[in-house]
Amino acid sequence: MAAGERSRATLNAVARQANVSRQTVSNVINFPERVSEETRLRVLAAIEDLGYRPHRAARQLRTSRSQVIGLRVWPPGDGLSGVVLDHFLHSLTASAEQHDHHVMLFTAADDEAEMAAYADLTATVGVDAFVLTHTHHDDQRIRWLAEHRLPFATFGRPWGSQVSYPWVDVDGAAGTRLATEHLLRRGHQVIGFVGWPPGSGVGEDRRAGWLSTLDSAGIGHRPEAAVFDGAEGGRVAAARLLDGDHPPTAFVCASDSLAVGVVTELRERGRHPGADASVIGFDDTPAAGVLGLSSIAQPIAEVAAECVRHLRAVLDGETPTPLSSLLPPRLVLRQT
Amino acid sequence: MAAGERSRATLNAVARQANVSRQTVSNVINFPERVSEETRLRVLAAIEDLGYRPHRAARQLRTSRSQVIGLRVWPPGDGLSGVVLDHFLHSLTASAEQHDHHVMLFTAADDEAEMAAYADLTATVGVDAFVLTHTHHDDQRIRWLAEHRLPFATFGRPWGSQVSYPWVDVDGAAGTRLATEHLLRRGHQVIGFVGWPPGSGVGEDRRAGWLSTLDSAGIGHRPEAAVFDGAEGGRVAAARLLDGDHPPTAFVCASDSLAVGVVTELRERGRHPGADASVIGFDDTPAAGVLGLSSIAQPIAEVAAECVRHLRAVLDGETPTPLSSLLPPRLVLRQT
Repeated sequence: MAAGERSRATLNAVARQANVSRQTVSNVINFPERVSEETRLRVLAAIEDLGYRPHRAARQLRTSRSQVIGLRVWPPGDGLSGVVLDHFLHSLTASAEQHDHHVMLFTAADDEAEMAAYADLTATVGVDAFVLTHTHHDDQRIRWLAEHRLPFATFGRPWGSQVSYPWVDVDGAAGTRLATEHLLRRGHQVIGFVGWPPGSGVGEDRRAGWLSTLDSAGIGHRPEAAVFDGAEGGRVAAARLLDGDHPPTAFVCASDSLAVGVVTELRERGRHPGADASVIGFDDTPAAGVLGLSSIAQPIAEVAAECVRHLRAVLDGETPTPLSSLLPPRLVLRQT
Repeated sequence: MAAGERSRATLNAVARQANVSRQTVSNVINFPERVSEETRLRVLAAIEDLGYRPHRAARQLRTSRSQVIGLRVWPPGDGLSGVVLDHFLHSLTASAEQHDHHVMLFTAADDEAEMAAYADLTATVGVDAFVLTHTHHDDQRIRWLAEHRLPFATFGRPWGSQVSYPWVDVDGAAGTRLATEHLLRRGHQVIGFVGWPPGSGVGEDRRAGWLSTLDSAGIGHRPEAAVFDGAEGGRVAAARLLDGDHPPTAFVCASDSLAVGVVTELRERGRHPGADASVIGFDDTPAAGVLGLSSIAQPIAEVAAECVRHLRAVLDGETPTPLSSLLPPRLVLRQT
């Protein structure tokens, strides 16, 4: 195998030669205690044989930079919400280029596979840093990156993480607060919330802004319904609230998909969204524009620019100041 | 400047030092006859000084591969159609990974800037090959890549190009044929087409399938309206056709955005899409699923897999067989 080829040996190649999964190779490198001695030796032999250089390359890249930022992409979803992350991907590419950085994409089936990809991409393609999305409680990826001292920033809050790291997020509660205040000013007395089942940090954040605004205004009726995301969920939730004791005249929704379902249910009952009922979605997806749906827009271009600012500071060996950015969304009013 | 840093000198840095645009640097490298002698010497001095190596690096990369595919991303658009290319981007990333390749993104204001980016990315980051989208008549990018012998494949037909190269596209006419045949079987006698103004290869392709199917069926009435894309355009087009001499009972549309507008206009006239009128969009965007809109779906995952197959053949010094792939779309029937 030629020298030029050796440096390109990938985690895939090592896994194939050792007849183990990519995850096992990653474990041998990063968590050797998880792997049997026999497997460990077989994998190390393949690493040696193929010239795979995970740690050395990663170290090397931190001193001589490739200017490449890795970003995991998810499979295109069924609903509308994936487009927010696609918008982010476009903005991150543009922001990175302003500072001579480029974005490289990768896929991963789950967080474990994502960590295996970090090891692989730093070693073989020379990715310098990562931007993470979909942060969640007990996020192993953050611990992994911190332990391996790989530069990263997240679009998404720590949600309880003990590690201190640079993050950027959008203040969802501020968004639903804007929406709820707007509806109160328009004279609505019963404002419902259509959200997701408990357990999602993003969902609880969006619900909190609606609830605290009604609290402050001294509004006692707070009808809400939690359903899985999607127009059908939104329709079911709206029907439940409209058939309840305190039918809302306005709805704040945790997503545009839910809001589309609410609009559909209102129309089927002969009500005209925008005239005798109000509906506000979240994320200002392209579909909201096409359908005339009012929505809360995340400042995605600013999120991307902040991520790049944070990463550049980390790559220069500095601590970003401030270490985190919680950006305000804005309310986009349309027909509904 | 350290050796490690020299290899990372970018076209941006050269442009800054020579006090010219990126395009001028690209011209000095690729079309020196377009540049004044004085400018040319200043740019060459900056190239020398910064150690920028456009041609050498590009040549080198063709022999020792980085396994990186470059893809231009467009700013997120207002409408729904951008999501098709975002879906493609996801699929291309996944297909490339199956063969140990990765996708790197870049932005460009226009085709000239895209060509400057080709030179820059092959020289500095070591991109191996490119996938082009938005092919059009007299596409300079294709000539440029062919002249510089850089491996590429396109998602989009040559549209009149004289250069023979590997391309993948979706047969739009086959899609609108499927839709029109379905509507004829459902008993519709007057089937309208809502499309874009002439001049777009994609638009003419989609119109052709509707027209040829009506021709074959011996249907004389072929009402059609051409408008700019978007729901408002679709609404205006539907109104025009419904107020015409032969109001359609069914509509084939060149995009989902147009179809959403047609549905809106029908509803405002008290007609129920799916019951007493039919509407079929194009591209099967997430919004179509959310709204229950029937649509024609492009096989994006297959397009991406074919692009990667073509590129791998070219990178291996072979001619892809076949050199081009025209893939059939499928009809996704929902409520409308």
